[in-house]
Amino acid sequence: MQMNRASSPETVTPTGGGNGRNGRAAYDLPAVLDIAVGAFNDYGYDATSMGLLAERLGTSKSAVYYHVSGKEDLLRLALERALGGLEGILTLPGATAGPAEDRLRFVLRGAVQVLVDDLPYVTLLLRLRGNTEIERNALERRRAFDHQVSQLVDQARADGSLRADVDSGTITRLLFGMINSIVEWYKPGGTLTPAQLADDVISVAFDGLHRPA
Amino acid sequence: MQMNRASSPETVTPTGGGNGRNGRAAYDLPAVLDIAVGAFNDYGYDATSMGLLAERLGTSKSAVYYHVSGKEDLLRLALERALGGLEGILTLPGATAGPAEDRLRFVLRGAVQVLVDDLPYVTLLLRLRGNTEIERNALERRRAFDHQVSQLVDQARADGSLRADVDSGTITRLLFGMINSIVEWYKPGGTLTPAQLADDVISVAFDGLHRPA
Repeated sequence: MQMNRASSPETVTPTGGGNGRNGRAAYDLPAVLDIAVGAFNDYGYDATSMGLLAERLGTSKSAVYYHVSGKEDLLRLALERALGGLEGILTLPGATAGPAEDRLRFVLRGAVQVLVDDLPYVTLLLRLRGNTEIERNALERRRAFDHQVSQLVDQARADGSLRADVDSGTITRLLFGMINSIVEWYKPGGTLTPAQLADDVISVAFDGLHRPA
Repeated sequence: MQMNRASSPETVTPTGGGNGRNGRAAYDLPAVLDIAVGAFNDYGYDATSMGLLAERLGTSKSAVYYHVSGKEDLLRLALERALGGLEGILTLPGATAGPAEDRLRFVLRGAVQVLVDDLPYVTLLLRLRGNTEIERNALERRRAFDHQVSQLVDQARADGSLRADVDSGTITRLLFGMINSIVEWYKPGGTLTPAQLADDVISVAFDGLHRPA
């Protein structure tokens, strides 16, 4: 499945004709997914109907069903993108070799990057309530990711790099609280670049707010 | 309006009888509010109907209408409780007198306390999407609170207490990200007491994860 963001502003034309590329829908699946994720974030997944999605796309419900069998598919694909991005970080050399503190910094920096790159997708993931099987499965994978980061925190503590007076579970949760909040306030394209944001998060997390000695 | 949490597990009996205290509803307004906030958090405000609330209370819709004119009232009362708690911190002596860094610590500690004391209410506030006038008004008050904390960060920086290499808006957002995340993971009644949690947040925020020198 292609996950590129290329899209066209034209109306979906499920049977093709002059409007769509390749004689198919003018809106490709990634574009439909972007619209769906936006609607899920604005109204909540439960309150978003296929009719509402069709309205946002300026097309008919049947045109949306050309791409997916229902909104469950859109949710699953969207969550796969967010989770796949986060899980991918843990497989990179920076996350698997070297001192635990360096690996922890690498993973946190990578998580900030995924959040910024796929902001609406990660927003959807973070707002899940777990009302459906798809959501519960995604929450399970998110917990597994958090757990691996928690293990890095444990190792960095065991190495003597991190403070030992705060529980490592608490540390991990506060770290993710800080990082995950980015989806709520970061405005892409502003003066705060993704690289600067990642630097700021790492600085504040490791060294705190106090003026460095 | 009473805001005590005392409630009875009996069925709502709007016209009174033997079941209700004072010959009125067995579920008083605070108890109805607790149930409503739980439902809003589980399903989203938009997806929660008065019928669903009545079902959760094990009573009829008309029994719920005995207390409020609609779910808008319940949302407004719930948000008032969360916002009133946060805004109240800023009026206390610890927030209004003394060095800016001490005031900032006091306010952050107070915010943790309000989050823990009124966990579901603050959860509701933090998940607002701004789809209705009541929600937009609450988001405006939350922004005003955040802005006052941001000013404390500015003052503490001007005093030379805080690092100057990270933008103060970014600092405030990361701080609130860390603190607000508590509603997503804190389990009241566990081994991590509210006081210890507040200490941990202040330690990590001001001194960072690194082992203290």
